[in-house]
Amino acid sequence: MKAEIIAVGTELLLGHTINTDAAHVARALSALGVDLHHACVVGDNAARLEACLRAALQRSDLVITTGGLGPTGDDLTKETVARVLGLPLEEHADSLRRLREYFGDRPVGENQYKQAWLPRGSHAFANSVGTAPGCAVPAEGHKLVILLPGPPSELLPMLHDGVVPWLARKTGACIQSSMVRTFALGEGDAELRLRDLTGGANPTVATYATDGEMFVRITAKAATAGEAAALVAPVREDVCRRLGDHVYGVDVENLESVVVPLLLQRGETLTTAESCTGGLLAKRITDVAGASSVFHQGLVTYANEAKTRLLGVPEELLARVGAVSPEVARCMAQQACARYGSTWGVGISGIAGPGGATATKPVGLVYIALSDGGRTWLRVMRPHGRYMGRAWTRQRAASHALDMLRRAMLGLPVEMEA
Amino acid sequence: MKAEIIAVGTELLLGHTINTDAAHVARALSALGVDLHHACVVGDNAARLEACLRAALQRSDLVITTGGLGPTGDDLTKETVARVLGLPLEEHADSLRRLREYFGDRPVGENQYKQAWLPRGSHAFANSVGTAPGCAVPAEGHKLVILLPGPPSELLPMLHDGVVPWLARKTGACIQSSMVRTFALGEGDAELRLRDLTGGANPTVATYATDGEMFVRITAKAATAGEAAALVAPVREDVCRRLGDHVYGVDVENLESVVVPLLLQRGETLTTAESCTGGLLAKRITDVAGASSVFHQGLVTYANEAKTRLLGVPEELLARVGAVSPEVARCMAQQACARYGSTWGVGISGIAGPGGATATKPVGLVYIALSDGGRTWLRVMRPHGRYMGRAWTRQRAASHALDMLRRAMLGLPVEMEA
Repeated sequence: MKAEIIAVGTELLLGHTINTDAAHVARALSALGVDLHHACVVGDNAARLEACLRAALQRSDLVITTGGLGPTGDDLTKETVARVLGLPLEEHADSLRRLREYFGDRPVGENQYKQAWLPRGSHAFANSVGTAPGCAVPAEGHKLVILLPGPPSELLPMLHDGVVPWLARKTGACIQSSMVRTFALGEGDAELRLRDLTGGANPTVATYATDGEMFVRITAKAATAGEAAALVAPVREDVCRRLGDHVYGVDVENLESVVVPLLLQRGETLTTAESCTGGLLAKRITDVAGASSVFHQGLVTYANEAKTRLLGVPEELLARVGAVSPEVARCMAQQACARYGSTWGVGISGIAGPGGATATKPVGLVYIALSDGGRTWLRVMRPHGRYMGRAWTRQRAASHALDMLRRAMLGLPVEMEA
Repeated sequence: MKAEIIAVGTELLLGHTINTDAAHVARALSALGVDLHHACVVGDNAARLEACLRAALQRSDLVITTGGLGPTGDDLTKETVARVLGLPLEEHADSLRRLREYFGDRPVGENQYKQAWLPRGSHAFANSVGTAPGCAVPAEGHKLVILLPGPPSELLPMLHDGVVPWLARKTGACIQSSMVRTFALGEGDAELRLRDLTGGANPTVATYATDGEMFVRITAKAATAGEAAALVAPVREDVCRRLGDHVYGVDVENLESVVVPLLLQRGETLTTAESCTGGLLAKRITDVAGASSVFHQGLVTYANEAKTRLLGVPEELLARVGAVSPEVARCMAQQACARYGSTWGVGISGIAGPGGATATKPVGLVYIALSDGGRTWLRVMRPHGRYMGRAWTRQRAASHALDMLRRAMLGLPVEMEA
């Protein structure tokens, strides 16, 4: 089955909205073994949408549109699809009932009702979050057009609870893939280590880098999920062996989703003491559901007085070496650990920028310390002449803290110059 | 000038990477008054990329590709563009020099060198962050193909520092747009208030919703930036008047980028006391450069003991009403304010989920309190039967806290049931 995605929305062509929907749909199609060869974006313009739809229906068996199903005047997708397929719109009783339920005792705006009209012969997908249902519309030659709402909060549950199970019954071949995630390894370095693997056709091995992390995706296609998985497994093991302890996880979401379960397994706790990351590390740890067992408190000690008051960092030390120093980061980590009775303490102090540099301390310089009450480890992030911005610096510093904790728990070397 | 974007990368079609590049490029083109009618995605496949390029060059004057410029074997964009345009690749001295500088005293991997080869006649755009330069390649009929690297950290500075100024000299018409941002206003409600404005052609008025916020974009096109701005201004004022104090800012990034400058102006400070948001509010505040003047510390009091120790929330109160209660949220806000000597204190306590619900407290229930030392205000987020997930609940709760603070500073009503 060949598929393509048409994302509808002028806000996408103006760059006001990032097209996350296409990525969600693409991932779901890939897991179903549906080949996606085209994806495009078109504005809220009936004529151009019609041209895209007609071209797509010639090339592909399945066309998935995202966006343009809402109550407003520039929501045109359903009307345009119905016209291209020559189908009338009809009131859909179940969608009307859900729309009324959604509004409860609030009045239903008159512009809302058009959302309960669907092209004749459609299979409806209920919207568990918003008002506009999705639908699968039959087209000539056993082709299909599936219409999904634009807001990701509505599209995602509909895709996973409605569309994927429904499509799974229509498809045969299966794709399985695995993602090997590493920290502190360059893409070029990884490519050299994996060079003879990246030319393969089934499974394919691809490296890519995001936010300073490097990932390797191994993807295989076969008649069944089991056969595809059997093709992936040995290559995944080979990749992991070649990349060594840079690998922090396979098919995991991120560092925090590895570190929190590790702490849980060991029955250990962590207290964070953050200056330049300003709560980002605590936020990432508590992104993981169930973090409350291992994370009881975090201190955002942004000002020097807060470092002294909440962590007991000596005023004299702050005056002598400055807040952005190995000594203060170490002291923050040690005190986070000792004062708050945690197994582990992290201290982060640096200059996230864009302001705040001094003659000896450039923007982008961050010290990250980890303490277990006895030992204290330190990493230094130096900008190496290329300041990557405030958000990048903060995200990277929090990642280093998580990687240090991971490596310390596993007995691996922790310190490095980054 | 008509433009289109071709994003190159199998990871985009598999949904492993979200196509943020296209949004960045689209926004830049829009600001230059370049019409973007098409955007598409193609995998790392020379034949399909070639087909896309040939079609794009027929329809458009300017084709911008993103991705496929790196050192690895599946980076094919430059080679494919050169072949389609019939141009040889030539070593580019300045790019070679920069590549050598980038590696410094580290050895340059042999696979790196191809990045310093460009199609004959290209204008190079230096890569300030990575190794692959971009370039503008002349095509027949005064058309242009611009090649940009895929990683957003490389694409963004090249786009803004290199491509935009270079293209600005080639374009005439200008687009100006304004974004009115609101909080706690539904998209349907906004559309009814703005109905007679959304049909306009120049300026256009479009509403859209993301992450529970509702935005209105007003966009005008004219021969000069000044004329376009003059078309936008009166409509923007009309939109703001109709949406009233739901509007938290115009052409601002988010709530925190409004709240931090307001605090700065007033010479006031804030201390945060977070339970279920786990540092997210502190993180959002410290996302804003310069927050250190108004934000000295934040407490992430995830466990009950931490609420007692760091904020003095009475154990008796926690035992009697539970951590997720109006009383505890109020106490957290009051203590954050009083104990830490801040003008304002925020307390957030709730059940972000997916676990943690009780018979009387559903997942998604969050209490958000704000105190100025004298008065204390409270908001309640109730899931209304539809739990929107952990990330949404946390993000929304932090946004409510920021909106409460904004409204309190401006003397507007603060409390609501959300």
